[in-house]
Amino acid sequence: MRSLNKIILIPLLALTFLMSNTANAQDIIDRIEPTFWWVGMHNPNLQLMIHGDKIGDLNPSVSYKGVTLEQVIKVENPNYLFINLNISPEAKAGSFPIEFKIDGKLVFTYKYELKQRRKGSAEREGFCNKDIIYLITPDRFANGDPSNDTVKGMREAADRSDKNGRHGGDIKGIIDHLDYIKDMGFTAIWVNPLLENDMEKYSYHGYATTDYYKIDPRFGTNNDYLRLTEEANKKGIKIIMDMIENHNGLFHWWTGDEPTNDWYHYQSEEKKTFTSHKKFTIPDPYATNTDKEAYSDGWFDTIMPDLNQRNPLMANYLIQNSIWWVEYANLGGIRQDTYTYPDPDFMAEWSCRIMAEYPNFNIVGEEWIDQPAIVSRWQKGKINENGYESCLPSLIDFPLQKALETALNLEKKPYSDTFNSLYETLAYDFLYPDPYNLVTMIDNHDIARFYNQVNENLDLFKMGLIYLYVTRGIPQIYYGTEILINNTEIPDDHSLIRTDMPGGWKSDSVNVFTEKGLTKEQKEVKDLVKKLNHFRTDNPALQTGQLKHYVPRDEVYVLFRFDEKKKIMSIFNKNKDLTSVELSHYQELLEGATKAINALTNESYDLKKGTINVEGTSATILIIE
Amino acid sequence: MRSLNKIILIPLLALTFLMSNTANAQDIIDRIEPTFWWVGMHNPNLQLMIHGDKIGDLNPSVSYKGVTLEQVIKVENPNYLFINLNISPEAKAGSFPIEFKIDGKLVFTYKYELKQRRKGSAEREGFCNKDIIYLITPDRFANGDPSNDTVKGMREAADRSDKNGRHGGDIKGIIDHLDYIKDMGFTAIWVNPLLENDMEKYSYHGYATTDYYKIDPRFGTNNDYLRLTEEANKKGIKIIMDMIENHNGLFHWWTGDEPTNDWYHYQSEEKKTFTSHKKFTIPDPYATNTDKEAYSDGWFDTIMPDLNQRNPLMANYLIQNSIWWVEYANLGGIRQDTYTYPDPDFMAEWSCRIMAEYPNFNIVGEEWIDQPAIVSRWQKGKINENGYESCLPSLIDFPLQKALETALNLEKKPYSDTFNSLYETLAYDFLYPDPYNLVTMIDNHDIARFYNQVNENLDLFKMGLIYLYVTRGIPQIYYGTEILINNTEIPDDHSLIRTDMPGGWKSDSVNVFTEKGLTKEQKEVKDLVKKLNHFRTDNPALQTGQLKHYVPRDEVYVLFRFDEKKKIMSIFNKNKDLTSVELSHYQELLEGATKAINALTNESYDLKKGTINVEGTSATILIIE
Repeated sequence: MRSLNKIILIPLLALTFLMSNTANAQDIIDRIEPTFWWVGMHNPNLQLMIHGDKIGDLNPSVSYKGVTLEQVIKVENPNYLFINLNISPEAKAGSFPIEFKIDGKLVFTYKYELKQRRKGSAEREGFCNKDIIYLITPDRFANGDPSNDTVKGMREAADRSDKNGRHGGDIKGIIDHLDYIKDMGFTAIWVNPLLENDMEKYSYHGYATTDYYKIDPRFGTNNDYLRLTEEANKKGIKIIMDMIENHNGLFHWWTGDEPTNDWYHYQSEEKKTFTSHKKFTIPDPYATNTDKEAYSDGWFDTIMPDLNQRNPLMANYLIQNSIWWVEYANLGGIRQDTYTYPDPDFMAEWSCRIMAEYPNFNIVGEEWIDQPAIVSRWQKGKINENGYESCLPSLIDFPLQKALETALNLEKKPYSDTFNSLYETLAYDFLYPDPYNLVTMIDNHDIARFYNQVNENLDLFKMGLIYLYVTRGIPQIYYGTEILINNTEIPDDHSLIRTDMPGGWKSDSVNVFTEKGLTKEQKEVKDLVKKLNHFRTDNPALQTGQLKHYVPRDEVYVLFRFDEKKKIMSIFNKNKDLTSVELSHYQELLEGATKAINALTNESYDLKKGTINVEGTSATILIIE
Repeated sequence: MRSLNKIILIPLLALTFLMSNTANAQDIIDRIEPTFWWVGMHNPNLQLMIHGDKIGDLNPSVSYKGVTLEQVIKVENPNYLFINLNISPEAKAGSFPIEFKIDGKLVFTYKYELKQRRKGSAEREGFCNKDIIYLITPDRFANGDPSNDTVKGMREAADRSDKNGRHGGDIKGIIDHLDYIKDMGFTAIWVNPLLENDMEKYSYHGYATTDYYKIDPRFGTNNDYLRLTEEANKKGIKIIMDMIENHNGLFHWWTGDEPTNDWYHYQSEEKKTFTSHKKFTIPDPYATNTDKEAYSDGWFDTIMPDLNQRNPLMANYLIQNSIWWVEYANLGGIRQDTYTYPDPDFMAEWSCRIMAEYPNFNIVGEEWIDQPAIVSRWQKGKINENGYESCLPSLIDFPLQKALETALNLEKKPYSDTFNSLYETLAYDFLYPDPYNLVTMIDNHDIARFYNQVNENLDLFKMGLIYLYVTRGIPQIYYGTEILINNTEIPDDHSLIRTDMPGGWKSDSVNVFTEKGLTKEQKEVKDLVKKLNHFRTDNPALQTGQLKHYVPRDEVYVLFRFDEKKKIMSIFNKNKDLTSVELSHYQELLEGATKAINALTNESYDLKKGTINVEGTSATILIIE
C-alpha cells in the first residue's frame, strides 16, 4: 500500500491544495487519534496520531489557551504525523483549531475537541472485593439486535450454524439482560473484547483488533457501549473492558501502511516467528536473548501481528487508547489479555499511567500459568529480584483454579490428602503482595467448563463453586456456568466452551432468563449461584475478612473467613459418606463458640456436642455464633 | 529419675561434703559442656551447662584474667547449673578454676580449659563451587576397625545380616580410603552423623544423637574424627559434618532428667504429637498456630524427641556445640539436617552465630521439598515477605534433583518437551539469592539410587550424571553411585539405598577400591565420574562461570557455562537416534566459534559445518574454541 501512495496520493494532495486556498480537513485526514480528549487529566501530555495522505509534509500549529504544541514528530511513513500537546490545568473544554501549513501557508484546519470529564471520574472505584464478576463472551450471550448480525462491508457475516462463526450476540443483548444479571447478584461484568475485529473468519472472540477506537458494528456502536455502562452503572454494576496490548488483527488499518518500520515485530521479514509461550524466559536468570525475544516478540498467531511497544509512539498510542476508554465509557475496570507477552517495561508504564489517572481503579492481568511464583511477579508491590515493578493491582488466579480442579478430581491415596494441592496453592499467597485482590474463577472463555472439569459430578461442582465464594479474592463466574453449561461434546473446544447462552436467541427452546426448559439440576445450580452471590454481598467477612485455614486431614478441609463482626467456617468434605468432624481440632478459631447456622439451609448446629456431621462430597458454610 | 534424686542424692552430696573439706569435682560433676573452649573467639560469651547431683545448690565463682562470670542461671532441675562467662580478648589459653561453694564454703574446684585456636581458624574457607562432595554413610562405607563393631555397654551390637542393623563401617574405614576418594577427584566429604546414637535398634543412620560431644564409639573416638579431618585436609579434602538441631535420641542422657520442664516439646505430656511434615505451614499467611506447632513442635519419630529451641539455654547449648565441632575438628562445612523443622528464629540465630565466627565458612541446609519457592526462603540474602532472614549460605537442591529425574523419565508428548521441567526448575533460580552456592545431587541417603531413578537405563544415568557436573551449584555424589549401586530389590528401602560399599569389608568378593569384580558398566561409570570430577576441577568455568541455557526444543536441551577464559557447551539429547543439532540457533553464545573439542572423547568438531551430530540419548560436553 505504501508504494501505491507514492504513485497516486502525492498528486492527490497537491491537487486538493491547488483547487482551493484551504482544503477540508476530512479530505486529507482520515484519522486523528485519540479521537478527542479531556481537560483536567492528571497527565497533561497528549500525543495525537494523525493519519492522512502525505500528512507528514505539513506543519501543524496550535493556538488555544492552556494548550501548547510541544513537539511535532515525523516518521518514516509520510502518511503520519505525531504531535505532542500539553494541556495545562487552565485549558477549558471546547474545540480548538490545529492549523496545518505547508511553506507557511495554511492548507487546512482541524477542530480537535477537549471534553469536560465526568464528576468524580479520577476518583472512580474499580471492581474490588465487594464485587462478583460475570464474564460474558458477547457474540454468544444474547442477540439483542438481529439487524446488526451481518454488516455490509465487513469481512465476516453471521452464521450461527458454524460453531467458530459469529452468532449474532451483541451489546443490546447484554443490556436487555442486565436485570437478570442484577437479580442473580452479580455486581460487575467483564465483557470479552468488543472492539472492531474486521477479520475474514473466526472473528467472534474479539482478540484481533482492527480499530482501537471503534466498537465492532456487529456488536453495536460506541454509543451502545456507552449506554451499556450507563444502564449497568444505574443498577450498581461495573463494566470491565477486555483490552489487548500485545497484538492486534492482521486487517488493522495500519497493516501495510505502518507509521514506522518497527511498528510491528517481524513487520518486514518474510519469516515470521510465533511466540514460544515460554513464560519462564522472563524471570529466568539464565535465559538467552534469543529465547526472551521468541517469547515477547513472536506473533501470537498468523493473523495476530505482535506490536512493538518498545517504540515510544506505539507505547503512547496504546496507553492513551486505554485511558480514553476508561474516561469515555466510564469503565469500572480493565481486564488485560496476555499481560506478560508485551515488553514488560511497557506494561509497567501502561499500568502505572492508568493507575496514576485513576488511583482507585482496578486492572486484572492475565498470566495463564499455574505457578504462583510466576504470576505473583506482576502484581503491584512485588519486590522482584531484578527490580521489576509494575502497577498492576490484580491478576487472574489461574493457579488456584488448577489446584481446585486437581483437588476435586484426585482420588485418595495413602499418606496424602486430596485437598493438599488446594491448601498449598493458597499457602503460596505469601508470594503475592495482595492476594485478596486476585480475581478467582472456576472457569472462563479459555478453559474447559467447570462441569467438565469435575466430570459432570454435581456434588463436586457444588463444592468447587462454594469454594470460590468463601476463599479470598474477587470471584468471577463465566456466563452459563450458573446452568451447568458443558463442553462435553468436544473437550477443550473453545467454540463449545463459548457456546450460546440458551434464551439469548429468540428461537431458543431453552431459556435461562425465563427458566423455560431448564433441568432440575440447572435450576438448582442457578439458585445456588444466586444465593451465594447475595450471601457474599451481604457478608463483608467473605469479601475483605481475614482468611485462616487448616491443613487438610482425613479428606476434610476447613477454611475460616472472619472480620470483627462475623466468623464463617466452611467445611469441605471429600469422603463419600457422612463424616463426623471433630470440633476440638478447630478451637483456635472457634474459640468456644456454641452455635452455628448453615448459611445455605438455615439449619442450626449445637457446637457443644463436639462434632458436626457433614454430608459426603459436600461443602458446608457455617455462620459461627 | 528426678524423684529418685530427691530421695538418694541429697544425702549423697551432703555426705561427700561432710567427709572432707573439699570434694573432688568428678565426684559431683558428671558433665560440663562445652567440654572445653577457646580464647580469641569472635563471640566473647560462653555458657556452660554443668550437670551433677544437686549441683544447683552450689554457687560457682571464677577468678582468671580476662574471664568474667557474668551470670549464674539455676533452673527447675537442681542437677543443672548454667553459668555465663565472658572471655575477653585478653584471656590467655590455659586452665582456670571454677570454684563451687555452698554458704561461702568451697566444696570443690573444677579446672576448665581454654585452648589456643588453630592459626587462620576464623578465616577458614568452607566448601564452595570449587568442590565436589562425596557423601558417605559411615556404617556402610568401610569397616576399618572390626574391633569396635560391637561396643560393650552400648544398646545395639553389630549385625551385618540385618539390613537395618549396624554393619561395622567406621571412621578408620574412611581414613583408609582417603586415597581412593582423592584419586577419584572428590575434594570434600560429607559424612552422615557420627555422634553417639546409643539407641536400641536402627541406630546406624546416626540421626538420634545421645551425646552431643562424643563420637559414637562404634565409629571411633573423638580423636579418630580429628585424625580423619587432619588426614583429609592434608590431601586437600574438606570434611563436612552432619548436624541435627531439631531432635535427638530418646536415650540421650537428658531424658528423664531434663534441665527445665520445657526442654523438649511434649516432654511431660502423655499424648505425644508427631511433626506433620507440612512445610507450607511456615510461609502460609493463613496457617493457624495449631498447624504451625504441629510442624515445628511435633516429634520427628517415636524415639526422636523434639528439642525446644525457644528455650534460650537449649538454643545456646546447640549453637555452642556446633561451633565447638567446627573449631575442634577443623571442619570445612556443616550439613544441617531437617533445617526448617526447628524454630525458624532459632535457626537464624544458629546460622548467624556460626557464620559470624567463620565468615568464609559454608553450611548447607536440608529442606526436602521440590518447590524452589519454599527452599529459597531459607537462603541468606533472601528478602522474605515476612522479614525472615537467616545466614544459611546453602541449601540442598532437591527441586533440581526431582526435575532431572522427571525430565529423564518423561516420555515425549505432543507440544511439550521432556526437558521442560529441568529448564523451568533452573529458571526458578530467580528465587534464590545465590543459586550457584546450592548443593546439587542426583541421589543421597534418603532417596532412591539414581540408577533406579532412571530405571537402570545406563544412557539416561550418564546424561543425569553429566548434567550434575555442568549445571550450577556444588555437586555431591553419594558413595557407590560411581559404581551404579542400586536399590532395585526393595524400591525406596532406606537400608538398601545405604547398602554396604563393596570392598569396605574384608570378606567382600567385589571391591570398588581395587576394581575387583566390577562389571564393565560399573567400571565405565566409575571412570566417567573420575573424569568428570577432574574435568570440573580443572575448569573454573564449570565452577563459578556464568550459566546460560536455551529453551529445550525437539528433545534437545543446550546449556552453556563460561567465564572469561573458557566456554563450555553441553548438549543433552533425548531423541533415541542420532540427532543433527542446528548451530545457527545457538549463535548468541557460540558467537561464530569455528571449532569445538569433546571434553570426554577429545573428538574435534568443525562448527563451520553449521550442525553437530549427537548420539541418541546422550550428553555431549564441548569445549568451544
